[in-house]
Amino acid sequence: MPLVAALDSVDGLRAILGLFEGVCTGAADGYGRMAEKPALTLLHLGPGFANGIANLHNARRARSPIVNVIGDHATWHVGADAPLTSDIVSLARPVSGWIRSVQKSTSLAGATAEAIAAAGRAPGQVATLIVPSDCQWDSAERYAEPIAPARPSMVRSDAVKHAAESIRKGNRVALFLGGTALRARGLKAAARIAAKSECHLICETFPARLERGAGMPALDRLPYFPEQAIEMLQGFDTVILAGAKKPVAFFGYPNFPSELLPKHLEAAILAEPTDDVAAALEALAIEIAAPVSVSNSAGISRPERPIGKLNAMTAGAAIAATMPEGAIVMDEAATTGLPFFAASIAAPPHTYLSLTGGAIGQGLPCATGAAVACPYRRVIAYQADGSAMYTLQALWTQARESLNVTTVLCNNRSYRILQVELARAGVAEPGRKARSLTSLANPGLEWTALANGMGVPAARVETAEELTRELERSFATPGPSLIEMIL
Amino acid sequence: MPLVAALDSVDGLRAILGLFEGVCTGAADGYGRMAEKPALTLLHLGPGFANGIANLHNARRARSPIVNVIGDHATWHVGADAPLTSDIVSLARPVSGWIRSVQKSTSLAGATAEAIAAAGRAPGQVATLIVPSDCQWDSAERYAEPIAPARPSMVRSDAVKHAAESIRKGNRVALFLGGTALRARGLKAAARIAAKSECHLICETFPARLERGAGMPALDRLPYFPEQAIEMLQGFDTVILAGAKKPVAFFGYPNFPSELLPKHLEAAILAEPTDDVAAALEALAIEIAAPVSVSNSAGISRPERPIGKLNAMTAGAAIAATMPEGAIVMDEAATTGLPFFAASIAAPPHTYLSLTGGAIGQGLPCATGAAVACPYRRVIAYQADGSAMYTLQALWTQARESLNVTTVLCNNRSYRILQVELARAGVAEPGRKARSLTSLANPGLEWTALANGMGVPAARVETAEELTRELERSFATPGPSLIEMIL
Repeated sequence: MPLVAALDSVDGLRAILGLFEGVCTGAADGYGRMAEKPALTLLHLGPGFANGIANLHNARRARSPIVNVIGDHATWHVGADAPLTSDIVSLARPVSGWIRSVQKSTSLAGATAEAIAAAGRAPGQVATLIVPSDCQWDSAERYAEPIAPARPSMVRSDAVKHAAESIRKGNRVALFLGGTALRARGLKAAARIAAKSECHLICETFPARLERGAGMPALDRLPYFPEQAIEMLQGFDTVILAGAKKPVAFFGYPNFPSELLPKHLEAAILAEPTDDVAAALEALAIEIAAPVSVSNSAGISRPERPIGKLNAMTAGAAIAATMPEGAIVMDEAATTGLPFFAASIAAPPHTYLSLTGGAIGQGLPCATGAAVACPYRRVIAYQADGSAMYTLQALWTQARESLNVTTVLCNNRSYRILQVELARAGVAEPGRKARSLTSLANPGLEWTALANGMGVPAARVETAEELTRELERSFATPGPSLIEMIL
Repeated sequence: MPLVAALDSVDGLRAILGLFEGVCTGAADGYGRMAEKPALTLLHLGPGFANGIANLHNARRARSPIVNVIGDHATWHVGADAPLTSDIVSLARPVSGWIRSVQKSTSLAGATAEAIAAAGRAPGQVATLIVPSDCQWDSAERYAEPIAPARPSMVRSDAVKHAAESIRKGNRVALFLGGTALRARGLKAAARIAAKSECHLICETFPARLERGAGMPALDRLPYFPEQAIEMLQGFDTVILAGAKKPVAFFGYPNFPSELLPKHLEAAILAEPTDDVAAALEALAIEIAAPVSVSNSAGISRPERPIGKLNAMTAGAAIAATMPEGAIVMDEAATTGLPFFAASIAAPPHTYLSLTGGAIGQGLPCATGAAVACPYRRVIAYQADGSAMYTLQALWTQARESLNVTTVLCNNRSYRILQVELARAGVAEPGRKARSLTSLANPGLEWTALANGMGVPAARVETAEELTRELERSFATPGPSLIEMIL
């Protein structure tokens, strides 16, 4: 409470309320990805923090900068084991790159500066600061100076030379791009490398942030299922890793390995995710005497406006056909989302955000935070229904803050991905209970009612034409709206 | 997936889908409190478990029996650090009394039997079993025999004699009742003790489950704020603890102690929460030669049906005036809830459940689980709006399972308790940001729309007469409904 009250005593801090902590942490992730500086979450003891863990898990995988401030019991009250007491450090450790528990009000200012610096350690991490209430209400004595965050590790010239060697050998080479390699500067360097060497550009399956569309190099995206990923990688002799770890299977399946790189293949690490990946790519471009710049003259090419039945193909085409330049697409559309990615390859330049940690319920919050970071860009939350239900409270924050978010809600009344995984596990005919646990029908969710209940205007569409019309209406209207697609 | 598919191969397991893990764990808590045997939650890796932690925190404080089964990556896949990998044990430890990570399919059956026994260790605890996917799809070889859970600790005769001595001394004695002391058998024994000795009966502030109404002894409830609690306890020389820990303040405040028992007061432990508390109370009744039974001849006495303006008083009176015998009242009405407790003291016999761990978002899920456990009783979820937003997905499960839950939603468009705590922290005039962070207005939540969107019929009421009418309509109608009270 002293901390909440104190927010009004300083300028430059914007206070945004989420009605569930998972909304706050997911929004901080979206903000961090777009603003490239940390948002601060303010959470209440262990259980309040716990509600934010799933989206902090995603943020950790995205390497987003976030500062969590967790209000805790007074230092002298913790031992009393009052109802809200719990082991906050044990809860925080799995998702935090940095944790500190303040014990005196006089160390709070310095610890906060350290937390902000830790969150900003390139490319970003989750920093968690536990602040007992007496450290809030006692005097802090003094302010602390800001601390510069650690810069990314330098480019290693031996790694650059080694990668250049692989390329020069004339082998079949893939450049596997992840993390900050997928932002504009890294991609421009990657395009130069590809222009000189014809090495193949592949991006990781779930990029935290990918700049794409007309003018950006075309990337192949590593497929989700291991058999497809292995097939794609089979065609190379060398994979150069730039900002990505060696790819592994999302889940372990019987008779498939964890590691997706075939055994014959040589993996060369150009840059770790915490390195200055763009600089390493630029160094590699110079090392192989790549052209100074590559102009992609193809220009904008959108798909035709789709007509007829709504499905994953027509929905993806409708978004790609209508989305404004500079859009930010948060893709948590799960099984429905894939065709959009292909359809939008030459759409106007846009940013693509994905579910990095597999913890569903990220899309609506992350879109919310991205819209806070970029108030003059349109955010499109392309969203599966099952995942949306996890953190639907985000819609209220979008309404309160008048954020420019268009939620495109895929209502297929099922956890379709679980039905796919059931089939992969050899269950051809699931029984009554298994069907019931993967179905969102009976009763069906009425997303227009849910959105309206939280102050977000909503429309329900059943054809591709209706979707296109509602998308254009939403893109032209300031503030949030939700379009419920009946699939 | 193998586990989900296997549910259809056995009878006697009911599969209930929650659309957010906090719904599942809160429902398991409500089920455990009412059925006095564990429900099983099925959760997905660390992030899925994390979404359930807040309500498991409440369940831990309630000492509810619960078995969590967490599906994890295959044992050979954990090391690959795939996106969903995290330190599940670190997340689970703060809320689990028992944890085990299975490493072989052949030990799964035995470990499951142990988990069920651990959950049932009197009076109950949270047992967490982590099951890698290969331990699900590999052969289990054999079934395991059920294991009898540990019984509560025996009555300690020295503790009984010591408590009897305190009572006989003629001091001002309070019997502080918690945990299983508040179920029918313990309360009957407490009433006998009070009849013989005129010692005062006090119940803990947030009982997991309290049997009350006509025929049950009248208890004073220890107040929430420390100054009021200390004032109540000041009047006694001795407090006999039966199933309750020494009371401590919910939060630490400047100039108030953590411990609420005044220093002059002697605390005698009759029975710890894990003891057989009812047996200890019965032994004490015998020791002091209390009457064999006490008849409470006062009978049912309900308040008048309130008229006029809706507020905490009239709402509490309306529920007490109309609720059916055998109702289960889950009280997460926060600042609005208190008057109901006094109004219903001689209402028809009913069960009262409260928020044990302070982690808000318990009410709707816990009511859901209680209704599963007791299909022939009406469950009343008396619910604050801010808390309800945490786990509103529970309404969908109530609709799907046609559960007899009446949600009475207190829409005061604020986190009123935070506004109270701000005032207690000395913030007389909160600034713009602090007001914004404690307000649920702008936009207001439309709870009838939210309920309808999840398949639950809903009505909005603005007077006490309307509330009474809608309560009676709901109590007479099978299945769930929601009544939104505009306060």
